[in-house]
Parts: sequence; structure tokens; C-alpha cells
Amino acid sequence: MKRIRLGIVGLGRAFSLMLPTFLADARVQLAAACDPRETARSQFEADFDAPAFHDVEALARRADIDAVYIASPHQFHAAHTRIAASHGKHVLVEKPMALSLAECDDMIAACREANVHLIVGHCHSFDTPYLRARELIASGAFGDVKMIQALNYTDYLYRPRRPEELKTEEGGGAVFSQAAHQVDIVRLLAGSRVTRVRAAVGNWDPARPTEGAYAATLWFENGAFATLAYNGYGHFDSDEWTGWIGEMGQTRSADEYGVARRKLAKVASREEEARLKAAGTYGGNAYTPAANVPDARRHQHFGPLIVSCERGDLRPMPDGVVVYGDERRERIELDAPKVPRAEVIDELMAAVHGDTAPLHDGVWARGTLEICLAMLRSSAEQRDVLIGGETSITKEC
Amino acid sequence: MKRIRLGIVGLGRAFSLMLPTFLADARVQLAAACDPRETARSQFEADFDAPAFHDVEALARRADIDAVYIASPHQFHAAHTRIAASHGKHVLVEKPMALSLAECDDMIAACREANVHLIVGHCHSFDTPYLRARELIASGAFGDVKMIQALNYTDYLYRPRRPEELKTEEGGGAVFSQAAHQVDIVRLLAGSRVTRVRAAVGNWDPARPTEGAYAATLWFENGAFATLAYNGYGHFDSDEWTGWIGEMGQTRSADEYGVARRKLAKVASREEEARLKAAGTYGGNAYTPAANVPDARRHQHFGPLIVSCERGDLRPMPDGVVVYGDERRERIELDAPKVPRAEVIDELMAAVHGDTAPLHDGVWARGTLEICLAMLRSSAEQRDVLIGGETSITKEC
Repeated sequence: MKRIRLGIVGLGRAFSLMLPTFLADARVQLAAACDPRETARSQFEADFDAPAFHDVEALARRADIDAVYIASPHQFHAAHTRIAASHGKHVLVEKPMALSLAECDDMIAACREANVHLIVGHCHSFDTPYLRARELIASGAFGDVKMIQALNYTDYLYRPRRPEELKTEEGGGAVFSQAAHQVDIVRLLAGSRVTRVRAAVGNWDPARPTEGAYAATLWFENGAFATLAYNGYGHFDSDEWTGWIGEMGQTRSADEYGVARRKLAKVASREEEARLKAAGTYGGNAYTPAANVPDARRHQHFGPLIVSCERGDLRPMPDGVVVYGDERRERIELDAPKVPRAEVIDELMAAVHGDTAPLHDGVWARGTLEICLAMLRSSAEQRDVLIGGETSITKEC
Repeated sequence: MKRIRLGIVGLGRAFSLMLPTFLADARVQLAAACDPRETARSQFEADFDAPAFHDVEALARRADIDAVYIASPHQFHAAHTRIAASHGKHVLVEKPMALSLAECDDMIAACREANVHLIVGHCHSFDTPYLRARELIASGAFGDVKMIQALNYTDYLYRPRRPEELKTEEGGGAVFSQAAHQVDIVRLLAGSRVTRVRAAVGNWDPARPTEGAYAATLWFENGAFATLAYNGYGHFDSDEWTGWIGEMGQTRSADEYGVARRKLAKVASREEEARLKAAGTYGGNAYTPAANVPDARRHQHFGPLIVSCERGDLRPMPDGVVVYGDERRERIELDAPKVPRAEVIDELMAAVHGDTAPLHDGVWARGTLEICLAMLRSSAEQRDVLIGGETSITKEC
């Protein structure tokens, strides 16, 4: 079996969320890492018998890695991608790809020049239920996509954050962090280019002064429209509408109400909050090792979503796709995931070993960032923002 | 006990839906009616021992009626209101109030000149769970309203229709008929004037060539925004998210999937469809008398809705309001309705016998129509439509 020797840039929360995948997917070998926190580096070296560096450059130089997973804070994605590409490493970079289109262009160009693949993810648009719904749409059995409704009510804003995660201008807030999922999913399902965006963002807790909520309408070239609604203020929880299966595929309890807010209320300062976040991630003293996390036997998801086609609605769910046809309703069962987020590794393997252009490449992810930026602008300028097309950069990188 | 002697204009579907109220509410006496269908008139005369006329004028002339309930097709609301007012009758007119703002102005002026009250309803914004949510908001306990999400997925477009109900220019389609509810509800909850509207409408069944779906964002003067989504194409059914309690408060079965579409598939022509609709309404040979309709022990509703305030979300439900506060979630139980839609009679009684200005008066309902018209225009012209304020007509009529 072919494997990928992966170098990890950033052992923080994104890595914590990908670690169950890396541990369970035999195709991945964690070959090296870098992180500014000494505790995280020590833990990595102990866990994987592999070197961990303070410096990204030192990691990227290694001859024994094929690809780099960039999970550093958003604002470093572009610089870290450039370093990895310059050493000939394929790049898997976390969403959001970057904070500006110029950075995206730079990343795409750097990877193209180095002849390496650039994949952006994990993003929930990799989740099997959405990919399966996309196949059902592509079959033509339901006609054209006409309308998509996606919503998600979470406690996003009250999870422990680093200070910059609460500043929009530094890449914080629900649009950069959460719309990146929702926009990506609806683009994938609509199967057409977004032509215009109208949005409203909500920022109503002065103690967490970034967007915690938004509503947006996207129009597609094929005539479809999508409405996205997101509220991360920690009140109503829309997992109620996905059978109390959480974003990570885990079984949740309706009775765990208000946990994030209660925990945060005990935190005295921004610094303590940042320490709390660090403590709960890999290498921190409150970190729960991945193996102890309850086994997720459902697929991950990003909230209730309904795709309306001419002859039926499709509703991706954590354990299947419900098909509401003209004549009957049926549920297409999906096999339980053996490895969470294995879809990311599938795409990475196909790119690195099969030289297959990834679905979630840099040009694709740039398109999602363009829409997220348009949402912020639309809300500020109170008007539709037109989306200019996928730029002159070709689909190959 | 004071009573209202009510004359009925139009014994069609709207009347059928109000009849359980009129029968159960001792404050209402059905004193006369008019309808072009002879079968409906005969049935009314037999059921209520009261006269039924072919002509609206003949009804309005009667000295023994206090108020007229205008439930004729949308396009006749303005003319019928004018006739009723000219005879000094208070007016309860079905939603949508009319099809143009000029007609609304005319109706408001006619009632003001005649010194009679004008109430527009039934509309689901009369439903107790929404009124209770409004009181909770007004208490100030949750801070300002910031965001509202309302959605409704139904089989609206596949219920039997008269031909004009499938022509937008004649008042057909989901915007006139269904947004009238949703817009009214979110305006009531936001408690502020709508300043701009952006919408997309969906019209994708060539056999039913009017809007069957829409998505809209409304912005309010107080900074709140609301997103509305409606899909009447009969696939996914959002009653799943209100505990399988239907719009009329009735218990539904998840297994009654596709009934409307299947029934309609057996109909050979538009004429047969119109006959089918007539047959199922009052006086028709397939009419189910109101008393035989299963007793609704839940409140009526118009789909899942979440109001997000600064310090909590409120979710009106058919049997209560769920309050998602900062610290805990609780359910405010609502007494089961003794009489469905009694809220309409409450408002009518207060106006007619208490001379209390109704909440759902002509100026209010004109505001809702203005927004519905703005939705159609926004979609056609692909831009925000600004809402000009409540016009120069004062709140009194």
C-alpha cells in the first residue's frame, strides 16, 4: 500500500481534529511536525517517534516527507504554503485557505511553479453525505438544482479562542471560520459558479466583538439560489434537526445545554482564555487523547441542509441522504465511516500518488474565500456584491 | 355577553378554514352570507338559518350585521371592502389584504371615512405562540432582537387551485399567499420598521407557472435582519421540525408523504382542478363539515422560526415557546386553544365593541403587502428594494 509521509505545521486545534484521521488511516505516516509550543513538540516526538521543530523551514527541508499539512493560524497559511512548496512538498492547507485573494493567488502560483498539488481542507464539503448528494444530483434523476437552504446554530463564538479569532480583520469571526464550510458545501451541490452575493452579518456581543452570525443569499449562474444562515451565539442548537448528531459525527445530548458559555464564564481574561484553548489542544495539560474520544459512527456534517431540485429535495444527514421525490420519500443509507474524514486522505492520495487534480484545490478554495469576503462587503455596503469569475488562474496547479 | 353579527363574503376555502372558529366561538353569530355558488348558499341557509345572497351589496345593506368577513378571492378584496364600509360595516378581510398598494390605500381611506375598523386576517401572525414570543421580547429580558430565521416547506403549490391562483399577476403564487404570513410574523417579532428587502423567487414547474418558492432577507430599522425561506413544491416537509404538528394545529403523520401531488396527478385539466377545489370547500359535494375535522389541540403555526435576541433565542412552537437563554433552556407551555383562531375574534371584538385599534389593521397589512411586492421586484430587478415607511396614512382608520 502506498503511503503519504506527512509533515504537520501547527499542532493546535485543527490538528487535534484531524488526528483521529491520521491515527486511523494506515495510508498516513506522521513523519515530522513543527509548533511554537514546546509541550506540543515533546508530545509529538513521544507519540510518533518523529522529529518536531520550532521552525517551519526546518520541517519543510526534510527529505523524508511527501506532503505538508498546514494547520497554523489562518494568517500564516500563505507564508507556510510558500515555504512548503519551495521545498517541493505537496500542500494540504486548512480552511480558510487564507485571508485575502492576493494570498490565495500567491499560494496557487507557488504550488504551480513548484509542480506540487495544493488541497484545501478539511472542510465539511468533504463529508460523504454531501458528496453522495452531489452524485445524486449529477445523475440527473431530480432535474436541475433550484434552491438550497443551509443553516447552522452552534456555540461557535463561546468556545475558547485566541484573541485574533475574535477580530475579523485578523481572520476571526464566523464568516472566515464557519461560512468557509457552508459556502463550500452549497457551491459543491449547486454545481455552478456563484455570480452574486447578498449578506447580513451579526455582531452583537461586545465582549466577543466579531461576527457571530450571518445570513446570506448566493445566486448561481445556472439560476439556482442558496440561503445560508449561521448563528454561533450558543442558544438554539440546530443539531436537534440532525438527530442530535454533532458536527464531528458524535452522539450529543439535548441536555448538555449551555456548556460552552458556562465554561467561558469562569475565565477571567483573554490571556486565560487563550491558555485554556492551548491546554485543551494537543500537548496541553487538559488535552484528551484522540483515542479516548467516543467513536464516531456517523458522518460529520455542518448543520441541516436541503437541496431542492426540479423533481425532488435531497437532505444529506449524518447517516444517509433522505430523498424526497415526487412520488415517495426514501433514505439512502451510508456506510458508517471507518475513519473520520478519510475523504481528505482519499483526495490527498489521489493527488500525490495518482496525480489526479483534487476537487478541493486552490482555485476552488479561492472561490469560497472570494464569496466569504463578498459577504462581509455586502453587509457593510448594503448591496449585492458581484463575483467576477474564477480569475485567470487555470484549474491546474 | 356581547356578540358580533357577522356577514360572510365568499364561502370558499378561507371561510372553510375560519368556520371552526365561528362555530366554536360563542361571540360570533353568522348572520348572512353571499357567494356566487348556489350550492354554497343553500348549505349556508340550511346550516345557519340565515339568508345567503348572490350579491355583496345585498349582504352589506342588511341592518342586522355588525361586521363583514371578506373571504372572496384576493382580487375582489378592495371592491368588497369599499361596499361593506359604505354601509357602515366593520371589515375583517382575509390576507393578502389586496394586490396593490393603491388598493390598500383605497380600503384604508374607505374605512376611515366610514368610521369603521379594518382588520386583516386570519394571518398566522395572530397565532398565540407568536404573540407570546412578542410579549417575551417586549419584556426586555432577552435584549434586542438581532436575527430571525423563518422557513416553511409545504405542498402549497400542489393543492387544488383556481386558474388565477397560478398566475402571479392575478395575485397567485407563494409570495402573495404565503409570504403574507411569514412577513407579517417576522415584522411582529422584530418590532421595527422594515427598511430594505432582498429576495429571490423560484418558479420551476412549468405546469404551475407561478412562484412556488422564495428566499428573502429583510432588514429592520433597529438593526435586526430576518431571513425567510419558503418552498411549496411538496417534497421535504418542515412540519418535521415542529413535532409533526401541521399548520392548522393538527397532528400529522410522517407517512402521508406526497398526498397532494398524487391527488393532483389524477386531475385532467385546470377546469377539473377548479371543480375539485370547489367540491372540497363549503357547499361542495366533497366538503368535510368542520365539526368532523379532528380536534386541534395545538396552536396553528407557519413553520419553524427562531428569533435570536442579544441574550437568548425564542422558538414559538404549536404548544409553547422554547426559550434558549444564556444559562438554561426552558419551555413556556401554552394552554391548548379552546377555539382555533380565537385570537382573530378577540381582536375583532376589541375593535367593534371596545373601539380598540386592532394590531392587524389596514396600515399594518399594507406594510406587509409592500414587502411582498418588494420581494417580487427585488427578485426581478436583482437588487435591494428600499421600503419607504408607513406612508402618510395615520394609524387610525
